[in-house]
Amino acid sequence: MPDKSVNVLVKREVGETFAEEISAIEPNAVIVTTDQLDADPELISRIDVCLGRLSVEQFERASRLKWLQCYAAGMDWAQNDAIRRHPALLTNSRIHAAPISEHLFGMLLMLTRRLHLAYERQQAGRWKRPDLDEVAMIDGKTLCVLGLGVIGRRCARVGRAFGMEVVGVKRHVELVTDVSEVFGPDRMHEALAAADVVINLLPGTEATEKLIDAGAFAAMKGGAIFMNAGRGRTVDTDALVEALRSGRLFGACIDVAAPEPLPDGHPLWRMPNVLITAHYSGIHPGYDRHVEELFLENLRRFRAGRPLINLVDKQAGY
Amino acid sequence: MPDKSVNVLVKREVGETFAEEISAIEPNAVIVTTDQLDADPELISRIDVCLGRLSVEQFERASRLKWLQCYAAGMDWAQNDAIRRHPALLTNSRIHAAPISEHLFGMLLMLTRRLHLAYERQQAGRWKRPDLDEVAMIDGKTLCVLGLGVIGRRCARVGRAFGMEVVGVKRHVELVTDVSEVFGPDRMHEALAAADVVINLLPGTEATEKLIDAGAFAAMKGGAIFMNAGRGRTVDTDALVEALRSGRLFGACIDVAAPEPLPDGHPLWRMPNVLITAHYSGIHPGYDRHVEELFLENLRRFRAGRPLINLVDKQAGY
Repeated sequence: MPDKSVNVLVKREVGETFAEEISAIEPNAVIVTTDQLDADPELISRIDVCLGRLSVEQFERASRLKWLQCYAAGMDWAQNDAIRRHPALLTNSRIHAAPISEHLFGMLLMLTRRLHLAYERQQAGRWKRPDLDEVAMIDGKTLCVLGLGVIGRRCARVGRAFGMEVVGVKRHVELVTDVSEVFGPDRMHEALAAADVVINLLPGTEATEKLIDAGAFAAMKGGAIFMNAGRGRTVDTDALVEALRSGRLFGACIDVAAPEPLPDGHPLWRMPNVLITAHYSGIHPGYDRHVEELFLENLRRFRAGRPLINLVDKQAGY
Repeated sequence: MPDKSVNVLVKREVGETFAEEISAIEPNAVIVTTDQLDADPELISRIDVCLGRLSVEQFERASRLKWLQCYAAGMDWAQNDAIRRHPALLTNSRIHAAPISEHLFGMLLMLTRRLHLAYERQQAGRWKRPDLDEVAMIDGKTLCVLGLGVIGRRCARVGRAFGMEVVGVKRHVELVTDVSEVFGPDRMHEALAAADVVINLLPGTEATEKLIDAGAFAAMKGGAIFMNAGRGRTVDTDALVEALRSGRLFGACIDVAAPEPLPDGHPLWRMPNVLITAHYSGIHPGYDRHVEELFLENLRRFRAGRPLINLVDKQAGY
């Protein structure tokens, strides 16, 4: 008798409701937890569907795996030949548009409105305003968004509402709402030269490795602000430090770094006009539940043989 | 021979260009500086036009004054019977929509994304992210804007771009772009009850004095965030402290306070989830020049007998 079970490995905690929701869609679902997999590593060879990452070694042994849904958006971990060759479909979670746009504009406005310095004064109980020319306005300025996926398009919309003009860089050039000019990757330096604020959302792939190098910083407007919520490895960190130190950039807001975590004593920690958050721009309450909802929708599609949402192009790496 | 000169008192520094621009519009203009007025206080009786505030005493003696343009937006200083009775027109500078909306959303996102705590960790060189449920999203939340003038409407537009629903309170109820429901002052508590975030932009008048009192805080949703960039006196500060202390409010972002400056040792300085800036949300580089441009446009209109821009309703007080 053929094994009709569909073995679903779930890498995070499985609530009762979620288990029921899975079974309602796929009556043959058998949920496998990480505890069970730890107890019997051979189980990996019988997994059909997985929610959460696998190691390369696990991937190589997951001969029945047909589809893997990630909790994260970044697919750096899957840039490996064994995973690329594996026939399983990969889907990621592109649920970060709202939190990352909120996080980035929060950091940007904190820097331009000197709110970090106001917070220091607040700690000291001191009521003192900065001089007029210490603050900056983003209204009327130009924003360049590198990577116009769902996050980049949301940043463009918010930038427009704040009165910014928005340009952007996208692998496949097309018209994008709220973006006045979209440049291809070969014209990235032109796009950078136009901008007072650069938001980098590039994925970490071989093609983007240290793409933001000394030449890119030299192409930027003097006094620009550089922001990174893509991947740290897309930036040459030494070149960033130098661009800040030389005064070419006004400042930087970085949620991702290379290396990560940013090591003790790294010069970025204490540079003026640099704001650093610990790779958390995408987190928000209910995050895991949002991924579960996406997984359930994809499970319906998977069963019906319909196209999955947020399918990753394994060759492109995102 | 009648005195054809139009005496223009300018309370701040007068650059050569600005003086020429004034003369180009009004060939009979004679610019009077504060130094000249200090040397001869009687000059006040011969001033026709003034850029900048006057004291009540000066107003009473400014018998020729026909129009006064303020650098600021707030007209608290003019809520005086002598000034109300004086026939001079008052215009203010409503040039704060961009800087104040940037400032307020900067403070709000700093609080919701825990960027103030990230800044503390950065000072200590510590790479550590908050837990998922420590951050909050503004996407999908409801914003209530008290006062839908140019600043409030700009906040509404930005809130919408961030995915918020926006309601508001306005003295004269009318349809407002980006605002799904506009309430009259008599229904303010209803508007407050709907909101996760309240932005107070009310002017300081007799009608708004301590309008945001214990009852208003009680009407707000549990866990709401209260923001103030209007006037400190529109809020009962003790009631605000109590609403924060009791946990009814999640937090507050205040750029104005009563009293102002906020005194040493005031409980607000050290309360968690309270961010304080020293009444500077409206400042921006080029501020004085923006007022000069507004003044020049109004001078053209004044000469031509056309309606002035940003005319203040002396009885309403804004």
